Amino acid sequence: MALVTGLAIELMWDAWMRRALALGALADGQTSPNPLVGAVVLDEHGRLVGEGFHARAGAPHAEVGALAQAGDRAQGGTLVVTLEPCCHHGRTPPCSEAVLKAGVHRVVIALEDPDPRVAGGGIQQLRGAGLDVISGVLQSEAAFQNRAFLHRVRTGRPWGTLKWAMGLDGRTALTNGESQWISGPTARQWVHRLRSKSDAVIVGGGTVRVDDPLLTSRGLRVPEPLRVVLSRSMQLPETAQLWDTSLAPTLVAHGPEAQDRHFPSGPQRQRLSASEPEPLMQELANRGCNRVLWECGPELAAAAIRQGCIQEVAAVVAPKLMGGVPARTPLGDLGSTAMDQVVTGSLLSSERLGDDWLFQFRLAR
Amino acid sequence: MALVTGLAIELMWDAWMRRALALGALADGQTSPNPLVGAVVLDEHGRLVGEGFHARAGAPHAEVGALAQAGDRAQGGTLVVTLEPCCHHGRTPPCSEAVLKAGVHRVVIALEDPDPRVAGGGIQQLRGAGLDVISGVLQSEAAFQNRAFLHRVRTGRPWGTLKWAMGLDGRTALTNGESQWISGPTARQWVHRLRSKSDAVIVGGGTVRVDDPLLTSRGLRVPEPLRVVLSRSMQLPETAQLWDTSLAPTLVAHGPEAQDRHFPSGPQRQRLSASEPEPLMQELANRGCNRVLWECGPELAAAAIRQGCIQEVAAVVAPKLMGGVPARTPLGDLGSTAMDQVVTGSLLSSERLGDDWLFQFRLAR
Repeated sequence: MALVTGLAIELMWDAWMRRALALGALADGQTSPNPLVGAVVLDEHGRLVGEGFHARAGAPHAEVGALAQAGDRAQGGTLVVTLEPCCHHGRTPPCSEAVLKAGVHRVVIALEDPDPRVAGGGIQQLRGAGLDVISGVLQSEAAFQNRAFLHRVRTGRPWGTLKWAMGLDGRTALTNGESQWISGPTARQWVHRLRSKSDAVIVGGGTVRVDDPLLTSRGLRVPEPLRVVLSRSMQLPETAQLWDTSLAPTLVAHGPEAQDRHFPSGPQRQRLSASEPEPLMQELANRGCNRVLWECGPELAAAAIRQGCIQEVAAVVAPKLMGGVPARTPLGDLGSTAMDQVVTGSLLSSERLGDDWLFQFRLAR
Repeated sequence: MALVTGLAIELMWDAWMRRALALGALADGQTSPNPLVGAVVLDEHGRLVGEGFHARAGAPHAEVGALAQAGDRAQGGTLVVTLEPCCHHGRTPPCSEAVLKAGVHRVVIALEDPDPRVAGGGIQQLRGAGLDVISGVLQSEAAFQNRAFLHRVRTGRPWGTLKWAMGLDGRTALTNGESQWISGPTARQWVHRLRSKSDAVIVGGGTVRVDDPLLTSRGLRVPEPLRVVLSRSMQLPETAQLWDTSLAPTLVAHGPEAQDRHFPSGPQRQRLSASEPEPLMQELANRGCNRVLWECGPELAAAAIRQGCIQEVAAVVAPKLMGGVPARTPLGDLGSTAMDQVVTGSLLSSERLGDDWLFQFRLAR
C-alpha cells in the first residue's frame, strides 16, 4: 500500500465505495424509514473480506453485517461504508461500537448521517478512538441514492415522484376518458418496478371511480407498498380492487368534512386536518414513508406540485397522437401567468422502454 | 480491381454512394420541385475525378456537373449517382445522353426515378448502350433523403411536417395564451434550420392574430420559404409581420366563403375550393412545393392530420411544467374513441437541443 500514490488511493476508495453503493441499492425501496446503506470490509492488505447491506428496518446495519462476515480478518483493515456509522441506540446497538470492536484501522465514508442523533457524532467517536476516518468519498452519488431518506429527515415529508403516461401530444386519455393502454407492456412493467421502490402509491377518488386500479408492484416488493386514496368527496365506489386488502394494504385518507360519509369496508381509514396533499405527506412521513409515488389525475397532481409534495416526475411518452380538446392532460392549474413562473427542472435520465420513452425529471425547487 | 472480392466491391459502392448522398444533401430544401441528387465520378482505376450535386431547379443535374468536372478522365470509369439519370428533355437535356457521351463503362444508382417520364427508362437506355448498370445501392437511404419528392410524385401532395413546442406536461401555452418562449434558443435555432429545408411554412389565421410570427429561416434559406396563412374567417389583423413581404413572400389562402372580406395589402391571395388543408396541399404541390412545414394551432393541426397532410411530427419538449386545464395543447380532436384508433407512428430520432428535447416522429399511415 505504501507504494500507491495519492491519486491511485483516491481511485481505489472510489471503486470500493461504488461497490458499497451497489450493495446498498439492493434494498432500494425496502428500508424505510431507514436509509439505504452498503458496506465492504478490506483486510490489512486491502483484500475484500466482508460485504453487507441494510435489508430492512430492524435488520442488522450494513457495516455490522460486513464486519461479522470479515470476522478477525477485519483487524487492521478498512471499513468502506456509504453512510456514517450511527452512534446511538436505536432498534439495533450503535454501529460505531461494532466498528471499534472489530479492530479496523480506517473507515471510509461517503455521507454524514443527517439524523440529528448522529450528524457527525459517529465520525467524531471513531476519530476520538484513533481511527483514520476519510469522509466525503462519492458523496454526491451517495446523496442521490438516499435522496428520499435525506429529504424526509430534512423536511419531515416523504420524497414524492409523480408518474404519468401520455401520448406525444400530451394527452393522458381520449376525450371519452379511455386510457387503457397508452403505454406498452415494457413501460407498464417499469411502473411496477417503480412501485416496488416506493413505500406508498397515491391516487385520488376520481382515479378509483374511473380506472379501478390495482396499484401493486405485482409481487416485486414484499410487502407491497401501501395504497393510498386521498378523497375529498368520499364518494367512493362500493366495490373496487383497492378495497381487497389481501394483496396489499389500502389507506383511505380524507378531511374532516367527509366524517359521516359511507366508508368502504376493507381499507384502513385516516382522517387528516384537510383533504390535501400536504397533511397527507405529514401522515405518511409519520408512518415511516421515505418515498411515495403519485399516480393520480391532473387536479390532485397539480395540487401536490403547488404544495411542494412532488420532487420528481416520471413521464412515459407513447408514440401516439391522441387528440381531443377536452381530453385529459397530465396537470391541472399551477397558477402560472408568465413563462418565467412555470415549474422548471432538469432531466435526470431519458431512455427507451419498448416503443415508449421515459423521462425522469427533477423539479428545480 | 480484379483482385477485389464481391463483398469488398459492394462495400466500396456503398462508401461512394454515401459520398454521393452527402453531396445531394447539400441542397436540402432548395431543389423543389426537383429531387435531391448527388453524384461522384471515378476513373478507370477507381480514383475520384468528379463530384456534383443538384443545387436548385434549373441548375445542372448532379451527374452532368460531376462528369464535366471529370472531363476525359471519366472515360472507362464509373458514375455513382443517387437517382436514376433522366432520359427526357426538361429544363435541361437528358442526363442519360451526357453519361453515354462521357464514356463511363459503369453506372451505380441508388434509386429509380419515380417520375413517370423516367421510371426505369434511363437505366434501360444505359444498359441498351452496353453500360454495366448496378441499381439499388443504399436504396432505402436514398428514398429517405428524397421522401418529400417521392411523396409529392406519388400522391400529388407535398410532404407535411407538423412542428410544435410544449412543456413536459403537453401544454403549448399557459392558460392566458402566453407561449413565448417555451423552448430555449438552441431549439428555436433548430426550427429556423427546419424552415430552411421547407418550401412553405403554414399557419392559420389564429396564429397570426395571437402570435404575429415572422416565420422566416432567418436567412438560412435563399429565397426564404413561402409563408402561408390558411384562413377560414379572413378576420386578419390590419398589420402583421407576415404582411411585410420584403423579407419573404406571403400567401393568404381562403375558401370561397371569404371572397368579399377585407384583404391585407402585401401578401398574395389564393382562393381554394375550401378553406381546408387538403385543397391547400394541392395548390402548393402545383406551385412546386415538395415539403411544407405546419406551425399552426391545435385545430388546424388536427384537421391536417385527419386529411392526411401530415407525414412527420417534430415535437420540442421543454423541461417545464406549465399546467392549466384550459391551456392549449398540440392537437385538437382526431375523432378517436378507443386506444386502437389513435394515430400511431415510429420515432425517427430523439436528441437534446440545449435544455430541450426534440422528437422526430413519422406517422404510420
